[in-house]
Amino acid sequence: MCGTDLQLLRGSAPFTGIPGHEFVGTVIDAPRADSRWIGRRVVGEINIGCGRCEWCRNRIKEHCPNRTVVGIRGRPGAFAERLALPAANLHEVPAEVDDEAAVFAEPVAAACRILEQVEVSADRTVAVIGDGRLGLLIAQVLMTTGATVVVHGRHEWKLRIARALGLEAYADAAAPAARHDIVVEATGRGEGLNRALELVKPRGTIVLKTTCDGDSSWTGWKAVVDEVRLIGSRCGPFAPALALLQSGAVKTKPLVTGWFSLADHQAAFDAARSGLKVLLDPHLE
Amino acid sequence: MCGTDLQLLRGSAPFTGIPGHEFVGTVIDAPRADSRWIGRRVVGEINIGCGRCEWCRNRIKEHCPNRTVVGIRGRPGAFAERLALPAANLHEVPAEVDDEAAVFAEPVAAACRILEQVEVSADRTVAVIGDGRLGLLIAQVLMTTGATVVVHGRHEWKLRIARALGLEAYADAAAPAARHDIVVEATGRGEGLNRALELVKPRGTIVLKTTCDGDSSWTGWKAVVDEVRLIGSRCGPFAPALALLQSGAVKTKPLVTGWFSLADHQAAFDAARSGLKVLLDPHLE
Repeated sequence: MCGTDLQLLRGSAPFTGIPGHEFVGTVIDAPRADSRWIGRRVVGEINIGCGRCEWCRNRIKEHCPNRTVVGIRGRPGAFAERLALPAANLHEVPAEVDDEAAVFAEPVAAACRILEQVEVSADRTVAVIGDGRLGLLIAQVLMTTGATVVVHGRHEWKLRIARALGLEAYADAAAPAARHDIVVEATGRGEGLNRALELVKPRGTIVLKTTCDGDSSWTGWKAVVDEVRLIGSRCGPFAPALALLQSGAVKTKPLVTGWFSLADHQAAFDAARSGLKVLLDPHLE
Repeated sequence: MCGTDLQLLRGSAPFTGIPGHEFVGTVIDAPRADSRWIGRRVVGEINIGCGRCEWCRNRIKEHCPNRTVVGIRGRPGAFAERLALPAANLHEVPAEVDDEAAVFAEPVAAACRILEQVEVSADRTVAVIGDGRLGLLIAQVLMTTGATVVVHGRHEWKLRIARALGLEAYADAAAPAARHDIVVEATGRGEGLNRALELVKPRGTIVLKTTCDGDSSWTGWKAVVDEVRLIGSRCGPFAPALALLQSGAVKTKPLVTGWFSLADHQAAFDAARSGLKVLLDPHLE
């Protein structure tokens, strides 16, 4: 479960059907041409393009205007016993990455997307605002670049987990006064952006990760006066994400709040609202 | 006069004193080291840095935290008979650029700033939203790259001026449905940003030029889903701006609403509110 699932449940998008887009599973059937996948343990990219538009021809299915997205847009998701996906979307999970870690491949890929968009190097300082599921993955991914990374959060128990993961983490109000080259806004709340504008240096970069529904208020003129660059950032590459999970550079165990059966979905959603990562297992009774 | 002057008059910033930051004048006095400037007709960059901070050491006085800005921040402006400025800020005006055109050097420089920040090339399509003073200068500057530029506005009489300047210009509601590689938000209103999000392609760029005071509302999640890049853009380089005015690539005559004396300042401000560019001339009676 991720924050997007909670938003969909609140009705933030016109999606009906089975949600869920962070998953691991075993391929049980495939067309003959893809039969080599049968029996393999896989994770999967969640965007499926039309295959014909300019975006698809450039292999950027994430922006195909006619795309479906697993459990988010026009396609059944992973809170289910079975799920269908084109073989082109599959990535085999290395043996060292257990199921509990493998479900993080999708959000870790979304974190890796930042490295495709912004030059994050060892001489940069980065603030990640948001101590939730995504924030703590992003901070770990950015740490692999050698950059100085600090997490700003609002929940002491999550900040303790951040520190256990080796991250420098502060209650936002108590964080050292500093402005950063890069600020990642991963609070899940519209108000996070104004805080990002306070924390970023002039001509610095704000990475936008929050997809909360509806409009929100921001002090746009500050972005103009400081000539800030803001970059919307969504889905990312699975191969480096799996490599980071395999090497242990990104740790996920402290982020798991609990496992639930599909029958216990109500308790699972409740736990996801107050906790970090909640896993649904169709094989649990 | 520019939109910022009207905002300052409304109290949008804690500035008191003489406003005005778009000007042309003749140097009447200078310290001995700068005496070669005396008698020359000049325009001037408006940011003055402390000379000691990291920004100033990197020659980016526009972001010096202790900067003053002519007529905007901590320094008397140009609605006056005389004005003091460091010689380093001066640019001599070519003879071919008359006074009425020379006052546009500062906003044309701000338009040229976009070319430093964003790659605008002949294969790109650009929409400029806003048919005001700045929008019509930006559109002309971007046209010099060979890019396809369209202006979206709300005032038929300004759109007619845009067309007279050789620009493709539409009433926003009647503009052809298209999404652009680059959208420049120069409406002077917070609402302009959501329109920019509608007009920009996925992974496209929005240049933010509006510095209207206060907070405004926007649909931030759209920027994330479409992975849009937004870039705040402020002051720019004077040398290319003067060259564009000299060559006639940027035309200013149709943008001038009228000339007023300092004594007629009230009428001048009224004209600036409803018109395009208003000039104050201290030598007018």
